[in-house]
Amino acid sequence: MITPRRINFKGRTPEPVLVVGSVAYDSIITPHATGKRILGGSAAYACLAASYFAPPRIVGVVGHDFLERDRKKLAKRGIDLDGLLTDSTGRTFSWSGRYHENYNRRDTEDLQLNVFEHFKPRLTETHRASPFVMLGNIRPDLQLNVLDQLTSPRFVLADTIDIWIETQRERLAEVMRRADLLVINDTESTKLTGEANVIIAGRKLREHGCRTVIIKKGEHGAVLFHEEGLFTLPAYPVTELRDPTGAGDSFAGALLGYLAATGSTDFAALRQAMIYGTAVASLTVEAFSTDRLAKAGCTEIRARRKALLQMMKA
Amino acid sequence: MITPRRINFKGRTPEPVLVVGSVAYDSIITPHATGKRILGGSAAYACLAASYFAPPRIVGVVGHDFLERDRKKLAKRGIDLDGLLTDSTGRTFSWSGRYHENYNRRDTEDLQLNVFEHFKPRLTETHRASPFVMLGNIRPDLQLNVLDQLTSPRFVLADTIDIWIETQRERLAEVMRRADLLVINDTESTKLTGEANVIIAGRKLREHGCRTVIIKKGEHGAVLFHEEGLFTLPAYPVTELRDPTGAGDSFAGALLGYLAATGSTDFAALRQAMIYGTAVASLTVEAFSTDRLAKAGCTEIRARRKALLQMMKA
Repeated sequence: MITPRRINFKGRTPEPVLVVGSVAYDSIITPHATGKRILGGSAAYACLAASYFAPPRIVGVVGHDFLERDRKKLAKRGIDLDGLLTDSTGRTFSWSGRYHENYNRRDTEDLQLNVFEHFKPRLTETHRASPFVMLGNIRPDLQLNVLDQLTSPRFVLADTIDIWIETQRERLAEVMRRADLLVINDTESTKLTGEANVIIAGRKLREHGCRTVIIKKGEHGAVLFHEEGLFTLPAYPVTELRDPTGAGDSFAGALLGYLAATGSTDFAALRQAMIYGTAVASLTVEAFSTDRLAKAGCTEIRARRKALLQMMKA
Repeated sequence: MITPRRINFKGRTPEPVLVVGSVAYDSIITPHATGKRILGGSAAYACLAASYFAPPRIVGVVGHDFLERDRKKLAKRGIDLDGLLTDSTGRTFSWSGRYHENYNRRDTEDLQLNVFEHFKPRLTETHRASPFVMLGNIRPDLQLNVLDQLTSPRFVLADTIDIWIETQRERLAEVMRRADLLVINDTESTKLTGEANVIIAGRKLREHGCRTVIIKKGEHGAVLFHEEGLFTLPAYPVTELRDPTGAGDSFAGALLGYLAATGSTDFAALRQAMIYGTAVASLTVEAFSTDRLAKAGCTEIRARRKALLQMMKA
């Protein structure tokens, strides 16, 4: 196993981070460029992002068309691929999307679940003992199944997506209650609560049983709702936006990686984790696919964190 | 002249703040309530907001229908009314607007310039010597005329509005170059620069000759573009939104009031001024018209500033 460069936190040995989610081939059209069958998926983005902080373990499925090149791309960042199943009966999950002018809207043009359709995460003995876990935006019943398999979870981050809010609301509510942190965007928080005001929506989610909630607002940053208070974080001032795909997963992956690296999960740690998450996500969106994310250096991440802190200084 | 309660900054005597702009009767319809012929206008909001920090001087015009009650409301906050002309040949400027669900869009339903149509600000000798000046969103040629009348300006804040970007672009550009600080919202910055990305828009405005720029993003806060760097500020987490009218003018008025109170206009002072501006604007929007703003206490403003600082703490 390769140990890639990671950000060091007082010489502490980071805990592993288990990420369950999709691995996909994306085809993306933006107003400025096009990318065809490029590596994507929530688990790929989140693991690459987490890899700058802690050793990630990916749990997902790919088809017979998954390229050795992409497997290497993940392995090179020290990602444990034991949980990346190859289902040779079909092709890898694929998604085609188009971003419109200003990138604030995207349309799905094609979606082929392929081998992902019958994916049921089955964790190895080692993986079950993972202390830090990210439940990517897979079906809530699968997320619950993963939760049931964990033997000693310390901190579970859950993500979701519009379709599960519409079709599996009750099981999603159970995921939200059982996870330590829910990370969603403002469209999703509105759908979940019926509230357009992000502050009211976040408070409602906590009243409904979510311990801690982060609502992402894209270029407007993110808000953390914690029992100890609110924390508002601006976005990194990206001016070279190329492809927003994976920004949210990069944010979540880096955030969880930071917690695993420092071993802290309190309010102060979550605030710092969000800053690192934002720094890493800003790198993701400056290139197509995972290109920039896979090559980002620790120095670059630290520099962006510093710039963010500077911008926030009252 | 009444000296109302003000926030005290190390016992310093605040400098006066001159505000040139509209005084209006607004009729406002929101999804939840309706207000008819209530006191409004950029200069009224800005002066009331500034009055918590420094003695404001209002320059504007009203008609024969302007109520003694509203004049008293302004005087009670120590606002110098020497520059508030009464034109008995007509009625006060009036505006009717309707806010839609979520308050992020408003339509003008009726607008009567009335006595404001031929308003030409003529400053008294005393007013001309004002060190801190806010040019509210009046016609750019009138803003330039005010600039020409000033004898010893120390810090000039300029605001504008969509219609002047469309109809008086060149004169507006001159205002922007001559002012120390331009305060606009994100719709206006996009119109001025053709850039939807707030970060790029702010930088472009500085390249085009604006010394310092603040772009307001409503519920998403505001960004300061200064030669020494960027500063991003979240909005105060308002959950009791009643009437957004005047939020921007309250923000600008309080901001300038803070500068006049402390006598500082550098990057650090501007950041603090924005926090006070946000605190005061959050009070404005919790009630119709200037109701909440006129009655807000210094304690309340300080408490909101503190809460904001807490939310921003990394």
